[in-house]
Order: sequence, then structure tokens, then C-alpha cells
Amino acid sequence: MITTQDWYRELGERRHAIWQVAQGGGCDLVLIYGGWGHAEPFRYVTNFVPVLGDAYAIAGGAQQWACVLNFSWQVIEARAISGLDDWYGQFNPVPKVVDLLHAAAPHAKRIGVVGLHRLPYPTYQSIKAAFPTAELLDIGTAVGKLRWRKSAFEVQLLGEAARITDMAFEAIREELKPGLTEFEVAARLNYHIQRQGADLSFAGTVVGGNDHPIPIRMPTERPLQVGDSVMIDIGASYQGYQADATRTYVLGEPNADQLRVWDVILRAYDAAFERIRPGVPCIDVHRAAVAVIEAAGYTLAHRIGHGIGLATSFEYPSLDTEPAPLEPGNTICIEPGIYVAGAGNMKLEDDVVVTADGYQLLTRCPREIAIPV
Amino acid sequence: MITTQDWYRELGERRHAIWQVAQGGGCDLVLIYGGWGHAEPFRYVTNFVPVLGDAYAIAGGAQQWACVLNFSWQVIEARAISGLDDWYGQFNPVPKVVDLLHAAAPHAKRIGVVGLHRLPYPTYQSIKAAFPTAELLDIGTAVGKLRWRKSAFEVQLLGEAARITDMAFEAIREELKPGLTEFEVAARLNYHIQRQGADLSFAGTVVGGNDHPIPIRMPTERPLQVGDSVMIDIGASYQGYQADATRTYVLGEPNADQLRVWDVILRAYDAAFERIRPGVPCIDVHRAAVAVIEAAGYTLAHRIGHGIGLATSFEYPSLDTEPAPLEPGNTICIEPGIYVAGAGNMKLEDDVVVTADGYQLLTRCPREIAIPV
Repeated sequence: MITTQDWYRELGERRHAIWQVAQGGGCDLVLIYGGWGHAEPFRYVTNFVPVLGDAYAIAGGAQQWACVLNFSWQVIEARAISGLDDWYGQFNPVPKVVDLLHAAAPHAKRIGVVGLHRLPYPTYQSIKAAFPTAELLDIGTAVGKLRWRKSAFEVQLLGEAARITDMAFEAIREELKPGLTEFEVAARLNYHIQRQGADLSFAGTVVGGNDHPIPIRMPTERPLQVGDSVMIDIGASYQGYQADATRTYVLGEPNADQLRVWDVILRAYDAAFERIRPGVPCIDVHRAAVAVIEAAGYTLAHRIGHGIGLATSFEYPSLDTEPAPLEPGNTICIEPGIYVAGAGNMKLEDDVVVTADGYQLLTRCPREIAIPV
Repeated sequence: MITTQDWYRELGERRHAIWQVAQGGGCDLVLIYGGWGHAEPFRYVTNFVPVLGDAYAIAGGAQQWACVLNFSWQVIEARAISGLDDWYGQFNPVPKVVDLLHAAAPHAKRIGVVGLHRLPYPTYQSIKAAFPTAELLDIGTAVGKLRWRKSAFEVQLLGEAARITDMAFEAIREELKPGLTEFEVAARLNYHIQRQGADLSFAGTVVGGNDHPIPIRMPTERPLQVGDSVMIDIGASYQGYQADATRTYVLGEPNADQLRVWDVILRAYDAAFERIRPGVPCIDVHRAAVAVIEAAGYTLAHRIGHGIGLATSFEYPSLDTEPAPLEPGNTICIEPGIYVAGAGNMKLEDDVVVTADGYQLLTRCPREIAIPV
């Protein structure tokens, strides 16, 4: 069980580490921008993201952090969660951000910015106008590296997210039957996740039917039918840490197309996992699975996996392009998928943490596809 | 029932209207930026937002629109929903955006941008580098005005969002009882909304208990108790159109504090509605309700209302600051709230469309607070 004190200690260490990165880059001021929808850098130092709007964290040499939101409603909650006292909410937050930057380091020469790649252009201009001679240095990549290797604390949180995701799959597996709409199935999955106190990593996908496969689409009012492939891609987010897993079920006896495709999926999945250990280039894991899919005559529809953590699809590493070796503490998902008419959407996805000598699975619920009807 | 053809007609008219705004501003190229979490301008012209990532729409003088996403998974779905054929998905979308801008108007002198206030700084730089002599003109405000007065089509969608929101309140009213956690109540509300094929306008709020009021916080594992105020602030989003409503329930007989506060809430609510008709300055509606709250000795915790449409809290108008008069087709929420120890969180919020001679309520479910236990 992770306590508030555990969080405060962890957050304090993270803020200190970021300050050190900034100082190493010659910065005398730090701005962390958490853009709405993409606020992972802000969450990393506060364990908080607002319901709506942007979030900014600011620190100067005294390392007294101050935070600004678009709305003041959640300030009391944010203080309790973050362990920081100095929070502000105003509809246009930028002037307050500029004021706080000035207060923290009025003569700053170099401002280290995390989230600069998302910082809105007018906000950038406002900061430049207030610090005309200062340089804005993008320290996002250097700070982002702190998140590549997850601590035991982070792995524990991802493990809890995976456990809740597994529970949702096990519950829906019992409930799936012909006649349920995709809407109903998706709503029940969300319910199973959210009643545990978790959020959704992303809007879950439920794709039923065999004739119009498409890697991802939103659920529809289509009722499930006997023989359908039902691909479910969901994730629970526990205290910000996001699982991302997929199961494919077939209502009744799988047909020949489904069996053939699923066999390839399982072999691609196994081929990827056989490569997962420290020192193996990320892209080799991707290529091992792709080789199986292409040897079977199917076309690759998307990459074989990516990092998980405070984000999913945007988390480092992207397995299809990253030549760097896997390291202990990397957390990734493996998700071979094949989408062909006759078999429908078929994908298998699990989350895993790289360990000193291999890996440990985080999502572990049953992978059998056939559901008796 | 709104059909795909209705949507295509509506979207075609919107895109044409935006082009006319751009042309009126002397622009020969248009870029609409839908930043993740804040993609309303993009949704306005496509009826689509991706599960993850940013979205860009581009048109030159030929008004052949092209769209770019971070991921290609949903391109088939996006084509069907938007009626546009030309979609791209790539992890770093900016180079493709720049290519498409060039293809649409290689010698553009003025680029009209919607969403410039959210455009990431490096994206802005990439566009400037590709069009060094062109001006980037913010046409966001002018285009945003197209959304101030809702069409009958839009009011119909908001009406459906309100109807689904009402259904969720009526379902949970039957289910509320001591012992349910806030997590459980929030998860059930989401289930009732999402099984209807709607999304959530925002992460719903369920705040139980009388001793630690706070305008908004996320649900907790705290079980509801007899005598609790239970404030529920939720909204269904139907085809992107977002309801935003609040009910407060008391488990059992309300205490004297709750009755006193609720009486003020009802009078503030009525005072606001008495002002709603075309020609009345938005801020007058706010002030009328504030006067009731302050005369009763309570402090205003937040504004009395704001626009609803493709967004909630960020939709025009903000009633507390907008001097412009209400117009037919404005859609707003009215949400007086008081948060004091002894009474807990108490708020009442309904959605309304301004009509030629007054208003029409969109959310209409029962407002009684007491729930027998």
C-alpha cells in the first residue's frame, strides 16, 4: 500500500532530480508545462492533473515550487495530493505564470522548460517578453529520461493498474454474450475499472464483427453476434500510471480464419517476448514479431509495442524506431494485431517490466479467445 | 434522428463559413489546429477527434480539405464520420502539415489559423520557416463566433446530451444508498451515460459528506453515510455536444444547514433564470444570482454559469465577465453552488437554450434533494 507520505518522498526526489538536470544545463529557473491532455510532465512532479485545463509548475534556485491552473476549484485537493502549498487558479493563467517566474528568479539568464514542445506559441511569447535576454532551454528530453527506467515505486503502481485491468477483462469475459451492443460492453468495462478508483488510460476500444476490420475505432450501437471476434483494448490508470492491454474473444467456436490469424498473433507475441531482456535493442523486439506476421502473409498494421507509464502511446520507447537497448525498469506493452476480413480485429496485448535478467508480466488475465455461447 | 447526410451538409456549411471568414481576413490558406484535450475547433469542421493526439485540418483556395493525426489507426473511421477523404496519420505530424499547407497554397501570403492560441511553439516555428514571408493571422475569435449562436441542429444534439444526462441522474437517484463509495457512484453514472453511446463531457464529480466541502474534487473511496449531501456534477457528450448538469441529494432527512443553504441555491437559481432572455447582458444573469447568495451571507465560490456546446467550462460566454447581451441560440448552464461545513457541497446546475422570447430548459430531471433511506 502506497501512502501519502510515500508519495511526498517520491515527489520530493523527482523535483530535486529535475532541478539537478536544470542546474546541469546552466538554468536558474524551471518551468514545467502540463498541457491539457498531455500533462504527464506536470503529473510527474505533483501527482496531480486538473479535470480541465493546463497546469504549470515553477521553481527557482530556492526550489520553492509554485503551481498554476486554469481553475481554482481543485486547489485544496491539489495541495493535499502534491504536498506543495503554493497553488493558484485563474482563467487566463499565463500572467500569473510570468509573475511567479519573476518572483522565483527575477534576473534569470536561462529558463529550463519541460513541455516546451507543447507550450502554446502565445505563452512562449509572453515569457520571452518578460525575460527578453533569457534563453528558454528545452530540458524535456533530459528530464524525460528520468521516466525511462521506472523505480520500484512506479512498477508497483503500474502493477496495480494492470491488476485492475485484468479484473475488468475477467468480469467482461463472464458477461459477454450475443445481443450486447459495443456501447454496452465498453460502458461495463469502464464501470469495472472506475469502481476500483482507477481512471481510464484512454477511451477504451470495443470492435465487434468479422467483416470490417479496422485497427481502432470507437464503439458503436452494433449488437454482438455469434461468431464475432470482439477485440477489447483498454487500460486502467492508477494514480496516473497507465496500463494498456488487449484481449480478443470469439463468441462461440472460432472459424478457420480466426484460428489461423490467432495462431500468428500468438507466435508473434511469443517471438517478441523471447527477445525481451536488458541489452536487446528495442527495435529488435519489434522486428522479431513483425517477421512472424509478414512470414504468414499479413501486413503490419501498426508497431508491436511502446512504453507505458504516465502515458501509453506517447511513452518512451516506440519499439518500431528505437535502437537503444532495453534496460531494467523499462515498462512496455507488446501488442501484435492483425485485421483482415473473415477474422475481424484480432490483437493480443500485455504489459511487462524489464528485469535484471528478463522480464515480469504485469497483465496476466486469461488469453483464450473462445467464449461459450 | 440526425443522419450521416445531415452531418455532411452541416459540416460542409461550417467549412464554407470558415473559409469565408478567412477570405474576409485576406487569407489564402487555412489551418485549424485541434490540440489534444482542446480540439473543439477541429471537431467543429470534421465531427471527429482522435482517441489520442493532435489533429490538423488544412484548406487552400480550392477548399479541398486535408487532415492530419498522430496515428493512422482511426483514419477509416475519420473518413466516414467527416465526409472528407484526405486523412493522414504519422507520429510526428508537423512535416506532413507543412507539406499539405504548401500543396494547398505554395505562395500563401496570409495563413488564417484557428487554434493559434494553443499551437505549440515549435509547430509555429516550422510553419514560419516554410512560409517565411507569410503572416499567420489568428482567425480563432472570428471563427469562434460561428459557435456562439447554436443552430437548430446543434440544439438538437445538446438536447440529446441533456436527455442522456437526465437519465443518468434518474438512474442513480434510485440506486443511491449509504455504504456506496464515491468511486462506485461515479462509475455507475459513467456507465449509465456511456451505454447510451455518449461520452463524458468531463470526469464526473461525486462529493459526499458535510464536513469538508470543496467546490470540485475527484471521487474517493469514502462510503456515503446517512445525512450526507452528495453533489454530483456530470455531463453526457453526444456526438461532441456536451451537457453539464449538477444535482445534490441528501441521504435521508436534510438537516437545518442543508435546508437553509438549499433554499438560497434555489433562489439564486431562480434569480438567474428570471434574467435569461435575448438582450440581457450575460453578466447580469451572473450578478442576479450572486446578489442572492451574498445577501444570504455566503461567499461566491465560482461563477454562476458559462456556455455549453463542443466544450463546457471553456465555451463562450463566461457569465461572470461577459458584458455582451444574450442572443437566441446561446446555450448556457446556470450553476449556483455553496460549500460550507455542516451543509457540505450543494449545487444545482441546468442547461438552457436562449429562445426568441426567453429560454427553454434542456436538462429537466427532478431537483428534490431528499432521498429516503
